[in-house]
Amino acid sequence: MTEWAAKVKLRRLRRVTYIFLCDRKFLYGAPQRTMNQVLYLYQRRNSNKLNGETTMTMNVLGFAAHSSREALTPYRFERRDPRTDDVVIDILYCGVCHSDLHQVRDDWGGSAYPLVPGHEIIGRVVRVGPDVNRFRQGDLVGVGCMVDSCQHCSACQSGLEQYCEESPTYTYNSVDRHDHTHTFGGYSEKIVVSDKFVLNIPDGLDLKGAAPLLCAGITTWSPLRHWNIGKGSNVAVIGLGGLGHMALKLAKALGADVTLFTRSPKKEQDARRLGADNVVLSTESAQMNAVKGQFELIIDTVPSVHDLNPYMPALSLDGTLVLVGFLGGIEPLLSTVPLIMGRKSVAGSVIGGIAETQEMLDFCGKHGITSDIEVIRIQDINDAYERLLKNDVKYRFVIDMTSLKE
Amino acid sequence: MTEWAAKVKLRRLRRVTYIFLCDRKFLYGAPQRTMNQVLYLYQRRNSNKLNGETTMTMNVLGFAAHSSREALTPYRFERRDPRTDDVVIDILYCGVCHSDLHQVRDDWGGSAYPLVPGHEIIGRVVRVGPDVNRFRQGDLVGVGCMVDSCQHCSACQSGLEQYCEESPTYTYNSVDRHDHTHTFGGYSEKIVVSDKFVLNIPDGLDLKGAAPLLCAGITTWSPLRHWNIGKGSNVAVIGLGGLGHMALKLAKALGADVTLFTRSPKKEQDARRLGADNVVLSTESAQMNAVKGQFELIIDTVPSVHDLNPYMPALSLDGTLVLVGFLGGIEPLLSTVPLIMGRKSVAGSVIGGIAETQEMLDFCGKHGITSDIEVIRIQDINDAYERLLKNDVKYRFVIDMTSLKE
Repeated sequence: MTEWAAKVKLRRLRRVTYIFLCDRKFLYGAPQRTMNQVLYLYQRRNSNKLNGETTMTMNVLGFAAHSSREALTPYRFERRDPRTDDVVIDILYCGVCHSDLHQVRDDWGGSAYPLVPGHEIIGRVVRVGPDVNRFRQGDLVGVGCMVDSCQHCSACQSGLEQYCEESPTYTYNSVDRHDHTHTFGGYSEKIVVSDKFVLNIPDGLDLKGAAPLLCAGITTWSPLRHWNIGKGSNVAVIGLGGLGHMALKLAKALGADVTLFTRSPKKEQDARRLGADNVVLSTESAQMNAVKGQFELIIDTVPSVHDLNPYMPALSLDGTLVLVGFLGGIEPLLSTVPLIMGRKSVAGSVIGGIAETQEMLDFCGKHGITSDIEVIRIQDINDAYERLLKNDVKYRFVIDMTSLKE
Repeated sequence: MTEWAAKVKLRRLRRVTYIFLCDRKFLYGAPQRTMNQVLYLYQRRNSNKLNGETTMTMNVLGFAAHSSREALTPYRFERRDPRTDDVVIDILYCGVCHSDLHQVRDDWGGSAYPLVPGHEIIGRVVRVGPDVNRFRQGDLVGVGCMVDSCQHCSACQSGLEQYCEESPTYTYNSVDRHDHTHTFGGYSEKIVVSDKFVLNIPDGLDLKGAAPLLCAGITTWSPLRHWNIGKGSNVAVIGLGGLGHMALKLAKALGADVTLFTRSPKKEQDARRLGADNVVLSTESAQMNAVKGQFELIIDTVPSVHDLNPYMPALSLDGTLVLVGFLGGIEPLLSTVPLIMGRKSVAGSVIGGIAETQEMLDFCGKHGITSDIEVIRIQDINDAYERLLKNDVKYRFVIDMTSLKE
């Protein structure tokens, strides 16, 4: 039998089975569900195997915080039963974001424990649901900060799922919008994610270094693209950490003239290596005066409270200072004078949409851009958090998830 | 002699006189100056009359503050010797702006006394310099907040003289960039202004009501235009005073759906008459909740310190709150959370460029828009200031300048 004949036979068999199921009232939600979905549900009921894996709830090992004051420890939990549009991913690497620490320690309130952090996930597809066409077993993929969104609000319709009017479902410390279970992040063996929120990792990108692109990368890429940064643009970045070093690399690769504002003279050499054309010590008034009116965009990556006023004169007419790192009150008081007298703006931006994240990954693939990282074992995560608080990492920790098996 | 023959004769005479002046070394700055300019200077030297007016420095009556603690009183001062590109204007009406009071009382620092306020000027042209082509004696014209700018920076080149990198020359309490004399404003008989900064008042506009367009009008028009407000836009205005009532009228005429935020239920009826489709009491949380995510632009006209945080949720994704009324620190602290989680902006905007001001005046001419005003005599200006402080004016005082002669 030729391959073509086999395909025809299979298609007929599926059609006959579907009609049989509908006749016998094994409807599984048909006709609201597609034939593919109905057949999948029937198959799952009648077999506990799909692609050689169990189809029922998966038991998964990860690392979790059990309260805001406890260290992360090994934790076994259930991943949800995969749906027809789901991709099951074996996690290879997971980046360590400052917001992991914020949520582990409940800095923003609303943390639900046990909490498995991690939203800079690189992994390999081990199984796909019957409605998944974009991925196949064996594909190298990424998952960022979101795993779902309402898909129907105007933000979602515009590819801005991060601003979903009903709030996106975050990769961890969030509630699944279908089965209302808690979401658990990438500090774990496997994750189950709707294919719409799975990213393709371009061939040739270093997988470890690509992990932080899923949060630090897209968080700085999105404002660069939204404010139309490219060749001839003059951009500044405040702060050289996980976000800041990605902002330098991406802005430079986009063709902009890039300046780093930093309080630390020691960072100059590294900043230039990462893409900065200029480094301005924000503590030196002469240096600050020399860049008055220079920048159409300043990306402020500082993750703690800090004075914005010294940076406002450095914006050009119609320039924007965009905050990406700090959630809280702007203190000391922000003066309206430079805003009004130069039609300047203070704005904010959070991560990026799924299409935009794929665009960023493809751009990084083309330009060979990854994060500068330090690989750690999952067992060292609590020490890594302490070092993160001291800004003692160049520039992102990435967990090698094979260490989970140790 | 036909008109054509007379013109030819006059042109020859002028050319001969010019050559004579150059031969006799009465150069008057030629060849840097044009023939027109040289002849004008010669004519001025040899006659103290031009169009029936004295050509030398004019002595002008106005009202001035002599210190930040004194009432305004009559004051005689010299207007500069008109230049070749100048327009001499008999002032008919002058609007009373809140910033007049701020500068009289030195609220922003830097006030130089005697200070003659006024930058919402409507008048009639009584004389023009030889290089002025746009205006003729008898024209009805306006002068706003600026009377000059560097004309060569990129802001000026883009028609954004209000953001001139070398700072525009303001109509009063500023220093002329050519002769370094102090500028005096519109609370006076006459003003001398470079034709580039003189606006044409469209036929049919009520002159008294048109005066506030030169500041209150353009201050609200400029952000409406910059942020592309038109049919289908959803705009809100905070505060119903001189600026606020113009914002309602202009936004409505541009085709937007317009909401007023106010703390005073008494203002609802008037707001609707002025163009508001909706009125939201900012003191009522239910009303504030009902407009979450609604507005692409909020024009904040409040002239004193106030909390911006309650208005941020009312902005839509990518929405902007633009401050036009308050110079100072944003207090209480502005939270970055809505900025970041909704890519929202807080911006500022000041008056508008000259071309944009003419565009606004033409738009007002077409739509019959003027300010709602209360006409006062110049002798009542100090009482008017007291009433302004109590917000007791609907919605702008305009001085009838004929009262100066009383």
